Amino acid sequence: MTKTYQPLRSVRWEDDELVLLDQTKLPEQTEFLTLKDVKQVWDAIERLKVRGAPAIGITAAYGVYVAVRHFPAATAEELLAEVKKQADYLATSRPTAVNLFWALNRMVKIAEIATAQGQSPEAMKRMLLVEAQAIQAEDEAVCRAIGEHALTLFSDGIGVLTHCNAGGLATAKYGTATAPMYLAHEKGWKIKVFADETRPVLQGARLTAYELQQAGIDVTLICDNMAAKVMANGWVQAVIVGTDRVAANGDVANKIGTYGLAVLARAHNIPFYVAAPLSSIDLNTPTGKEIPIEEREADEIIRGMGRQIAPNDIKVYNPAFDVTPHELVTAIITEKGIVRAPYKENLRALFEK
Amino acid sequence: MTKTYQPLRSVRWEDDELVLLDQTKLPEQTEFLTLKDVKQVWDAIERLKVRGAPAIGITAAYGVYVAVRHFPAATAEELLAEVKKQADYLATSRPTAVNLFWALNRMVKIAEIATAQGQSPEAMKRMLLVEAQAIQAEDEAVCRAIGEHALTLFSDGIGVLTHCNAGGLATAKYGTATAPMYLAHEKGWKIKVFADETRPVLQGARLTAYELQQAGIDVTLICDNMAAKVMANGWVQAVIVGTDRVAANGDVANKIGTYGLAVLARAHNIPFYVAAPLSSIDLNTPTGKEIPIEEREADEIIRGMGRQIAPNDIKVYNPAFDVTPHELVTAIITEKGIVRAPYKENLRALFEK
Repeated sequence: MTKTYQPLRSVRWEDDELVLLDQTKLPEQTEFLTLKDVKQVWDAIERLKVRGAPAIGITAAYGVYVAVRHFPAATAEELLAEVKKQADYLATSRPTAVNLFWALNRMVKIAEIATAQGQSPEAMKRMLLVEAQAIQAEDEAVCRAIGEHALTLFSDGIGVLTHCNAGGLATAKYGTATAPMYLAHEKGWKIKVFADETRPVLQGARLTAYELQQAGIDVTLICDNMAAKVMANGWVQAVIVGTDRVAANGDVANKIGTYGLAVLARAHNIPFYVAAPLSSIDLNTPTGKEIPIEEREADEIIRGMGRQIAPNDIKVYNPAFDVTPHELVTAIITEKGIVRAPYKENLRALFEK
Repeated sequence: MTKTYQPLRSVRWEDDELVLLDQTKLPEQTEFLTLKDVKQVWDAIERLKVRGAPAIGITAAYGVYVAVRHFPAATAEELLAEVKKQADYLATSRPTAVNLFWALNRMVKIAEIATAQGQSPEAMKRMLLVEAQAIQAEDEAVCRAIGEHALTLFSDGIGVLTHCNAGGLATAKYGTATAPMYLAHEKGWKIKVFADETRPVLQGARLTAYELQQAGIDVTLICDNMAAKVMANGWVQAVIVGTDRVAANGDVANKIGTYGLAVLARAHNIPFYVAAPLSSIDLNTPTGKEIPIEEREADEIIRGMGRQIAPNDIKVYNPAFDVTPHELVTAIITEKGIVRAPYKENLRALFEK
């Protein structure tokens, strides 16, 4: 009894149109937008209707094609100039998103290749669409590979706890930490997922719980401070999270609360896994100590949920991330395979493969 | 440089009136209500304007006096009957609150004593007021004694982390877990308190942060999932929490999240203290396993903060409490002194003193 995972894709190319799930409306409403011109794409990125580094990059790549598909260029050079102009414009939508620039650069490069090859403007347009689709397909392949490797660590019937959203909504499909959940579901395994709500921004409640529920996966929402009890109850056989950056020694930066979960997992003898595409592993960062931790404003906690929940002018400590030392990480799961300690040697070897 | 703790008393007898802090308005508004008749007292208890077992008991005790102070009784017997009637009425305001019944019983008993002594109705009324004031004074003394004992474990300049609200708002004054903070502040010590917001009902954000801020104590609000990072930062030298019930073996039931904190404290070599009046220690409960854990409704998490934060119909696990095994408890601090392991023997000895 294999089930097919009906993907709730946050970015799709469908009937020759760019279709986007409006993530600002979640979890109350599932609303898809058809983006007809580049201004709409720019707005969607800027207004966070699409979020998650891979999903932003994919959207921007399609955005370049949407921007130039009807441009009446007489020559490839003319079209290339327009591609560059539109890519520059899209790059201003979210100036700190590295993945955005990376995807836009790929689109410009394919236009340059087409020009060098002497392709017609129409052929170049087709190549741009194919390149955007390739960016999406590659991301999906990375996520699926992470899921396949992670699945070897899971078994039918297990309970899995996750934190924040390293899910399909943020990527082409599958997500990173959620990939083995979707693949287990495809295989017909009954897995039971516990999703931390993930204060203060509640990505776990708003996004992870939502996307797993949409896929028909058995998901239970808990508050962050209930994770220890869920572990003590014996309901969880693995913790799996995503990451913002893995240092060369295997230290893992991720959403605030991850470190505490890792300590709790160790105390309960539960393996703690990190799903990490190679693009998130930074060998130039020696250890977690070198990863800067963003501190965010007090109001995100005091007034972030629709109602004031603490006194005015209360002092707040609001770090967005924490660092889990590699000693607490059972394994790092990449698209190239599972990495275990010693991380320094084994992560380096991964890139030399 | 000794500071005087200006108490924000949640229940006061002032200018011959019962004055109550409306806790449902916190933290946005500090609003005091003057309760003129027994119906207003009943409403205040029923609508949770007063919360915390000791504070409810004190309010109800004053409520009996408020109910009968103008009753035109010709005889003590006639007044005693009215006292019983009003106590029965007040007992219906919050039918699960053990402390409420205990306080009302004390009020009825003093009326019975006055009747047996042949006191006049006017003298009985005075005795009723004095008894209510005694209940309040005794609670304050218990809290202060807990604070004095706990203070021997603290030192000037330390950081202390607490969870939920075992604070002055719930008691006559000082609270239990907060008592050493207020006493340290009175001594002029600089202590730095970290208050977990305490999802889902946010008592830490709404109440603990509020009352410590009002008292001029250095308090920083954090989300529950930030506690591990605060510990790793080296900012905390003690964790102190209240309790709903301590079992005979020293297992501690308290607000959900307490157990996880205790695990984290152990992992960071930080002592984990429980402030527990003798009234919360139940030698008839052998271990924490026998303490029933209330599971609350999903909506408290999904829609409890003014805005929907998770999908409709999402499955939720919402335990109100957890149990911290006695192995993780460094000491239990009572009004009769500090108890350490072996708890079974030492808690029993406490009651035999």
